[in-house]
Amino acid sequence: MTEFTRLVRFLAKDGQTYYGDAILPSGVSDISEAQQARIITGDIFGKHEVSDQVADIRLLLSPLAPADIGTLRCLGLNYALHAKESGLPEPQYPVLFYKPSTAVAGPTDPIPVPTIAQEGSGLDYECELVIVIGKRCTNVSEAEALDYVLGYAVGNDMSHRDWQIKRGGGQWSIGKGFDGWAPFGPGIVSTKLIKDPQALRIWTKLNGETVQDGHTSDMIFKAKKMISFLSQGVTLMPGDLIFTGTPSGVGMGRNPPLWLKDGDVVEVGLEQVGTCTNKVDFARVKAKI
Amino acid sequence: MTEFTRLVRFLAKDGQTYYGDAILPSGVSDISEAQQARIITGDIFGKHEVSDQVADIRLLLSPLAPADIGTLRCLGLNYALHAKESGLPEPQYPVLFYKPSTAVAGPTDPIPVPTIAQEGSGLDYECELVIVIGKRCTNVSEAEALDYVLGYAVGNDMSHRDWQIKRGGGQWSIGKGFDGWAPFGPGIVSTKLIKDPQALRIWTKLNGETVQDGHTSDMIFKAKKMISFLSQGVTLMPGDLIFTGTPSGVGMGRNPPLWLKDGDVVEVGLEQVGTCTNKVDFARVKAKI
Repeated sequence: MTEFTRLVRFLAKDGQTYYGDAILPSGVSDISEAQQARIITGDIFGKHEVSDQVADIRLLLSPLAPADIGTLRCLGLNYALHAKESGLPEPQYPVLFYKPSTAVAGPTDPIPVPTIAQEGSGLDYECELVIVIGKRCTNVSEAEALDYVLGYAVGNDMSHRDWQIKRGGGQWSIGKGFDGWAPFGPGIVSTKLIKDPQALRIWTKLNGETVQDGHTSDMIFKAKKMISFLSQGVTLMPGDLIFTGTPSGVGMGRNPPLWLKDGDVVEVGLEQVGTCTNKVDFARVKAKI
Repeated sequence: MTEFTRLVRFLAKDGQTYYGDAILPSGVSDISEAQQARIITGDIFGKHEVSDQVADIRLLLSPLAPADIGTLRCLGLNYALHAKESGLPEPQYPVLFYKPSTAVAGPTDPIPVPTIAQEGSGLDYECELVIVIGKRCTNVSEAEALDYVLGYAVGNDMSHRDWQIKRGGGQWSIGKGFDGWAPFGPGIVSTKLIKDPQALRIWTKLNGETVQDGHTSDMIFKAKKMISFLSQGVTLMPGDLIFTGTPSGVGMGRNPPLWLKDGDVVEVGLEQVGTCTNKVDFARVKAKI
């Protein structure tokens, strides 16, 4: 039974790390602006309680602890205009790829760009609605699919187009799987607050300028459909994440292409959830995970 | 410090599940024939001890417990003749894809074929040397790469060619990621026993008949090279598995193609390790994981 409304994980001013329910000041809707949270005790996927104890947030972390993260599934080409800008046809079935769980990072972590991804060009951003699975399920119907969702967040499916497309032998894995290349957060908003995941504005700002401005209603495969499809013959586990594809406006789709550089600041945002703001960092070759 | 020689996980006749060091009777080299094992206590990735206590094996399980399994990486087209039979060029860089950890199964588990993979044709086997990572590492050199290996096993990279190739939008994930589609075992042989992973015969028998008969010396990217490459900008974790690609002789490469049917028995084998023998099972739509 989910009790939280906006799940965050954070380093508190007391030096401890907690799960908490973010407290949003009146008029604030971006979880990344929360200064305080009510500490959560228990199992976030099971019985847990939002306590009365309020802690001051020093730093928001990845909303799930590494031990609580399962499999990261990602969908490609799930917005019609993005498929078009990628020069690829709209898919007939969901196009699935994975990232390793070591790709997960928090809402303000720098994005480390390893040496092999500093070669060539093609460093790109992709804002995405992230579905967090809350309950184990297999072969679920579309009608039941959202019952297995813990909540929703926003993430950046960082990509290196040369490795993804030209050097991967057709498989996208190498160019998307580096440490820290799936920052997400700033919190996980429960399905009690977001009843319709297809009714949300989603965007990316690069150094403050809007470069993607989409809406989840434009997804080709909606959340219900993709959860049902991905669970056919496959057990989805609590803590599994689904990055649901990006709208148009990525760097690759522009003329000339717009590639990320060292020091660039990428904000990905989702209505009712908030923003992750991550700096591209060529010096941090080894990610802190 | 690795103390075991042939790590197995098993249900014992006393009804308990243990990690153990398989005891091979004289003249036996296939771990799947082991009747007994010395019980291992401690952390198999860290300090552990092979005790004097011998247990009787009732059933060999997946050599790693679900909680000990990390990310499953798989290489495609890593044997020249297999690339040729697939109609694809030899890759310039390792071709990487993933399976979810729920795909892992034990050396005698039935392979469940879910309804969506019973449609169409293309159910296929792939025998593969499996590398088990034992220590966390990032950006390792080829010279050091094998220092991070816990040991070697054999696995079957089960594939549904229609979903893999025709319906995945070019990404192989859907057609390879079903529950139980990465059986491996029968045990993990330590790097003390297998000093050269490129010196091993590898094979598949379908209903007793040899259909793949290869040698790991024919790999395009050898174990050292692939571990070094896969660790660039990526942290490999204890319990991560690398399925290293399959030699020629898969069903897809034959004329006419040879597709697996309900009830078929697939044995994958690796010299110095042994065999996994799994039955294709169309009735077991939900895998036991």
